[in-house]
Amino acid sequence: MTESKIIYSLRKENLNNYSKTYVPSRLLLGPGPSNAHPEVLKALSLNPIGHLDDAYLELMSDVQELLRYAWQCNNRVSLPMSGTGSAAMEASIANFIEEEETILIAKKGYFGDRLVDMASRYKANVVVIEKEWGEAFSLDEIKFEIEKNKPSIFAIVHAETSTGVLQPLDGIGEICRKNNCLFLVDAVTSLGAVKLLVDDWKIDLAYSCSQKGLSCPPGLSPFTMNNRAEEKLNKRKSKVPNWYLDLSLLNKYWGSDRVYHHTAPVNMNYAIREGLRLIANEGLENIWERHLRNSEKLCNGLIELGLELHVSEEFRLPTLTTVKIPPGVDGDLFRNHLLNEYGIEIGNGLGSLSGKIWRIGLMGYNSTDKNVDRLLNLFDTELKKFSIFRSAAF
Amino acid sequence: MTESKIIYSLRKENLNNYSKTYVPSRLLLGPGPSNAHPEVLKALSLNPIGHLDDAYLELMSDVQELLRYAWQCNNRVSLPMSGTGSAAMEASIANFIEEEETILIAKKGYFGDRLVDMASRYKANVVVIEKEWGEAFSLDEIKFEIEKNKPSIFAIVHAETSTGVLQPLDGIGEICRKNNCLFLVDAVTSLGAVKLLVDDWKIDLAYSCSQKGLSCPPGLSPFTMNNRAEEKLNKRKSKVPNWYLDLSLLNKYWGSDRVYHHTAPVNMNYAIREGLRLIANEGLENIWERHLRNSEKLCNGLIELGLELHVSEEFRLPTLTTVKIPPGVDGDLFRNHLLNEYGIEIGNGLGSLSGKIWRIGLMGYNSTDKNVDRLLNLFDTELKKFSIFRSAAF
Repeated sequence: MTESKIIYSLRKENLNNYSKTYVPSRLLLGPGPSNAHPEVLKALSLNPIGHLDDAYLELMSDVQELLRYAWQCNNRVSLPMSGTGSAAMEASIANFIEEEETILIAKKGYFGDRLVDMASRYKANVVVIEKEWGEAFSLDEIKFEIEKNKPSIFAIVHAETSTGVLQPLDGIGEICRKNNCLFLVDAVTSLGAVKLLVDDWKIDLAYSCSQKGLSCPPGLSPFTMNNRAEEKLNKRKSKVPNWYLDLSLLNKYWGSDRVYHHTAPVNMNYAIREGLRLIANEGLENIWERHLRNSEKLCNGLIELGLELHVSEEFRLPTLTTVKIPPGVDGDLFRNHLLNEYGIEIGNGLGSLSGKIWRIGLMGYNSTDKNVDRLLNLFDTELKKFSIFRSAAF
Repeated sequence: MTESKIIYSLRKENLNNYSKTYVPSRLLLGPGPSNAHPEVLKALSLNPIGHLDDAYLELMSDVQELLRYAWQCNNRVSLPMSGTGSAAMEASIANFIEEEETILIAKKGYFGDRLVDMASRYKANVVVIEKEWGEAFSLDEIKFEIEKNKPSIFAIVHAETSTGVLQPLDGIGEICRKNNCLFLVDAVTSLGAVKLLVDDWKIDLAYSCSQKGLSCPPGLSPFTMNNRAEEKLNKRKSKVPNWYLDLSLLNKYWGSDRVYHHTAPVNMNYAIREGLRLIANEGLENIWERHLRNSEKLCNGLIELGLELHVSEEFRLPTLTTVKIPPGVDGDLFRNHLLNEYGIEIGNGLGSLSGKIWRIGLMGYNSTDKNVDRLLNLFDTELKKFSIFRSAAF
């Protein structure tokens, strides 16, 4: 052990130079995370308490009730899973699909691909229908494919963060019920920001994240399921092939039994309670209206500057705007300029849209008139510095 | 929609009464979570930044390097997984077991059972050897069983939080190598608190949590694997049947590629960087010594008060002491008294030890001389109030 001891003490010498943890201040106007509300950060930094402490169990009940409001549903099971958005996405597959069952996935961006990857790991019979990145599905198309493929689950992304498309959901739930199929919705970029009515739209399963509409840091993934989904879960022939995300076990901890499953990320749950409380305080209708108003102002401003939007008006997502990088501009250079000179983050395109669009997020706490003005001003004054056609319109 | 709108606005009325998020102050001397260091809580409440921001990528590198020190290893792959301890536990099974492979699990408490449950979900051939809750395995027993069962993985819990036993690990690694088997260690209650030498002890895979020795809130699970484990991962015939915990994908984000996998819980990573930095600052040898010293003082003090410890001296765990509830005392009533009157949490026994022992944790930030004194004083003055034999020795 002598030799390695020397290695470790040498290494420790280097480690002693590490300074206190610090990160630069950023205005996060990309695809997420968004900035957290200051009250949320205060709640986050309260001291941890035990995950079986009565005070914590009470906080869990608050979170569940506040989540029901945010989801607009009466589902008993409405809880945040202990991971970032993808954890609840995987839970929605792992718990509700058994081998060889058919899942129909309507893919129109990056996060549809992720659903496909996950579903295939759980050995589902995966059927995919596709749209160009920037388009939405019509109700007729969806109806046709559900009737044709007779899936156990139909999955679609409400707000595609990779493209900036808002998929209309009204009417799909009825089709799913008629065809004995569960309706699964990815609401990662819509919960707490864009109109979403889980009960009214007959959504059976939905998941989201904490770092967008809820104005919290990333780390939790809100989930909800109704009785139809619960029934399917209870009828499983095999154990859920994922322990951490097993909803029958999670249910016993979040339900009235309060049986210990895994140690809860208690501080993140403080944060989400506060984020959800602020949402209830402002009121969902007001929040939806605020997000719409600010994104419309952003879109109009960008168009006035001579820029072109990636998504046609009727399908534009209030939380995320995709704008085409003008010819002759290096998108990465401009993004880095905004980040390094002004501390503002905007996003690059994903996959085939990389280098072709920027993604601008106005989510939760960050969806403000002031932020829109600030960004439009910078696009106005700075973008021309990055064009090889310096005299062009913008 | 009219009807449900009324329901929702009524519900919102109720929600408006929710007060700001608050939790009572607690001294957490149970099995975990433990209190977080104040500097950790400060780091936790910094504003989120993007998970692909250079400043964040740099912070990730710090975390990895600091983790190598805490693990005492040179493993390239040393990273915190985005969930609480059980997430990395599951990752250790999901990534390294393929269907029908044999895993040998040495079970001597609650968390051995959890490993068994997880491994069976991944369709391993699970072989279990068992000890009474409160005992440890000998090296000879382990050698015999590995040679007999020829497993692909041998798994054992280093510090059993359910029993207070510290399992000696020295020598097991050599046996595993001779038998072409991976050595998997659960270090949930030992990392950053109890002597643990991943390289020297030839541990191939290990995982832990953030809320004990690292003095952070729960929410991350440190993981490490060496080249032997990586080789096995690379030789898998099937895709890892778990997307969120897929180490080949996580590796690309934490490795030099920095390919986006899931959105990182950035604030929890600020916290763990700070917790690990404080560990490097104090020095592991000092920390191990501090935990030993304080737990010895606690054990001696409890014995002096006439109480009996559950574990024999040679196997006592410095982070968690199990003490028998004296006859005639209602363990829950006494625990609730400490919590409600003094804000101090201690733990109940799990499983068959429920009602028979208390579990007292002295972990990370909470392993102090002052906390030991405070608790011993309370045991001295308060415990007699709960005995039906009021004149008894204690």
